[in-house]
Amino acid sequence: MNELNPPERLLMGPGPSNVHPRVYKALSAPIVGHLDPIFLEVMEQSKTLLREVFETENELTIPISGTGSAGMETCFVNVVEPGDRVVIGVNGVFGQRMCDVAERCGAEVERVEVPWGQAIDPAQFEAALKTGGKTKLVAVVQAETSTGVLQPLQEIGALAREYDSLFLVDAVTSLGGVSVGVDAMGIDLCYSGTQKCLSCPPGLSPITLSDQAVSVLQSRQSKVQSWYLDLGMIAQYWGETRVYHHTAPISMNYALREALRLIQEEGLPACWARHRQYQEALIAGLQAMGLEPVVDDSKLRLPPLTTVKIPDHVDEAAVRKQLLAQFDIEIGGGLGVFQGKAWRIGLMGHTSKPKSVIQFLAALETCLGSSTERASGLTAAQQVLERT
Amino acid sequence: MNELNPPERLLMGPGPSNVHPRVYKALSAPIVGHLDPIFLEVMEQSKTLLREVFETENELTIPISGTGSAGMETCFVNVVEPGDRVVIGVNGVFGQRMCDVAERCGAEVERVEVPWGQAIDPAQFEAALKTGGKTKLVAVVQAETSTGVLQPLQEIGALAREYDSLFLVDAVTSLGGVSVGVDAMGIDLCYSGTQKCLSCPPGLSPITLSDQAVSVLQSRQSKVQSWYLDLGMIAQYWGETRVYHHTAPISMNYALREALRLIQEEGLPACWARHRQYQEALIAGLQAMGLEPVVDDSKLRLPPLTTVKIPDHVDEAAVRKQLLAQFDIEIGGGLGVFQGKAWRIGLMGHTSKPKSVIQFLAALETCLGSSTERASGLTAAQQVLERT
Repeated sequence: MNELNPPERLLMGPGPSNVHPRVYKALSAPIVGHLDPIFLEVMEQSKTLLREVFETENELTIPISGTGSAGMETCFVNVVEPGDRVVIGVNGVFGQRMCDVAERCGAEVERVEVPWGQAIDPAQFEAALKTGGKTKLVAVVQAETSTGVLQPLQEIGALAREYDSLFLVDAVTSLGGVSVGVDAMGIDLCYSGTQKCLSCPPGLSPITLSDQAVSVLQSRQSKVQSWYLDLGMIAQYWGETRVYHHTAPISMNYALREALRLIQEEGLPACWARHRQYQEALIAGLQAMGLEPVVDDSKLRLPPLTTVKIPDHVDEAAVRKQLLAQFDIEIGGGLGVFQGKAWRIGLMGHTSKPKSVIQFLAALETCLGSSTERASGLTAAQQVLERT
Repeated sequence: MNELNPPERLLMGPGPSNVHPRVYKALSAPIVGHLDPIFLEVMEQSKTLLREVFETENELTIPISGTGSAGMETCFVNVVEPGDRVVIGVNGVFGQRMCDVAERCGAEVERVEVPWGQAIDPAQFEAALKTGGKTKLVAVVQAETSTGVLQPLQEIGALAREYDSLFLVDAVTSLGGVSVGVDAMGIDLCYSGTQKCLSCPPGLSPITLSDQAVSVLQSRQSKVQSWYLDLGMIAQYWGETRVYHHTAPISMNYALREALRLIQEEGLPACWARHRQYQEALIAGLQAMGLEPVVDDSKLRLPPLTTVKIPDHVDEAAVRKQLLAQFDIEIGGGLGVFQGKAWRIGLMGHTSKPKSVIQFLAALETCLGSSTERASGLTAAQQVLERT
């Protein structure tokens, strides 16, 4: 078994995305103990930086020591108790996963469903909130990584407030790439992942809870069923008392801090604009090559992740394999309903730059077979890029 | 907020321990996707290497994407169902934590307790197994990180088999530093952490399950209450079908593979012997300085972690603070019953070497105030080291 020598991939799948060199450097900085004054400072700084990207003043804003799905479970498991009614929007894999997680907490789950690739109409949430008993929690995925849909949040947030429910949002593939606006949207619980628009390896899940969510957590009747994800205890370690809970992943926390520092330097609005602009260039290129996006309405397209329909007569797995083997480019296949029918092309964080767009389109052209039409893809993308 | 520039600490607390330079290098290798053929190879290699350190042939031997406590929770949550009777040995913080975790799974928990700092007599387990109904699971901490006790396992394992119960062992602070002997001891479920004797940063929890444990998992009546830690799904991703569950922490998995490769190169018995020998040197030094170990019986001392009584009239927190500030050495304070009464001094993994012992004793001598008696500590340690 030899020394590890992984290739330098261009990571354009649904995550992980490419990691910034400064983040790699932070990742391999000498570790200190989880109660070392140096690490406590890192924790405080990360909380501050996380509040900035979440656009919130929430005190309880921390990274959970697991990947995005651990953040999802943390949010549900801490506020949901057996028998609670929960309304969940489902238009892809991650909405489905939220239902599964909520059911494992003993929730009575009401699904608000639309076909994959569509956003959910707030009126559907209103209908679900009007009927049935008191709803403890309304949950929706802002950035459906399985479909590439960007779900508008404002009206659903207003409805949650109107019906006195907590509002939970999955921002795994949006945080840092799109405005999440935790405070402005009235979001009470939000979770994300480090491996998407934050340009950091997978391993932590940033979360934030409003004071309202914290007070629900504090007034629970039953113990949180997960010890590892019990925010009552975790918040003590991340708060003033510093009571030991578990040994925090030191290196990953170093990396996250540096990743957040990079976003702060670039500026959050500039970061969002970049994700939007390079997606436009990508889509212009794809369309010129004859490939159509899954999401018709450009306003509902998730900037960090583009889903595109696979042309007829194309062996989609063979194309992905060739992209990886010949060009070191990873893109994602379809999940669930979209398996074999769509590709998922990510331009997230450090990957979101002009050369990723151009390299990918050139490689895709080769894989699909050159033609005059295909070649025009690069030109179309260049034109969008030159508009900056 | 500046670039991170952490000091190079000598990590001699209860973990994390120092990370080997080769592990840091692997940690910052370019990441690939979680379904990349290169990563699938890393996964297979890690499974093989983990089986070696666990001393097992168990197929289901993988790292959980969380720290040691996530491994603890994974073991309980996957085999325990509401109403199951569980017998747990409690002689420190981590035995207590197992009770808390088991209760959150709805288990009926029977505690087998002895005072902190002592090992548990197998006869006490037998008494608990004889009375009460059928016991689903017998659990014990091999390496009690809060007390420094090494719990013998053989007889408890035999009792678990006799009473047709699963045998669960916490090997967080033993794996790689002491023989765990999963197959030889009849252990059905075992978990560890990466940040102790494996010389890797915290962030993953290696676990292993026997076929018997897997069959209990597969014949559950109820769904596993944790989605994130559901081994039914996780085992598919780590098995032949590679079904996506969550995005594995790529960098941490790179690091773990390299850490395990280091142990393979050294040889497991040599690694255990090193931990034992340098603890002996440390204790000889401490005793010559007038400090006494908490655990009287040298056979019951946990080689990677030594607990020592704090001398009268010593401000223990001030000493730890001075060690950190003046010498960049971290040791641990006491937990629970031992708070303010004992120090916890780790010699784990990459930290377990002669110069750690000597540097620490010299620094401690300075902190406690030089004297002829104190000075003899270094000599005593040197003598043990020279016996090699």
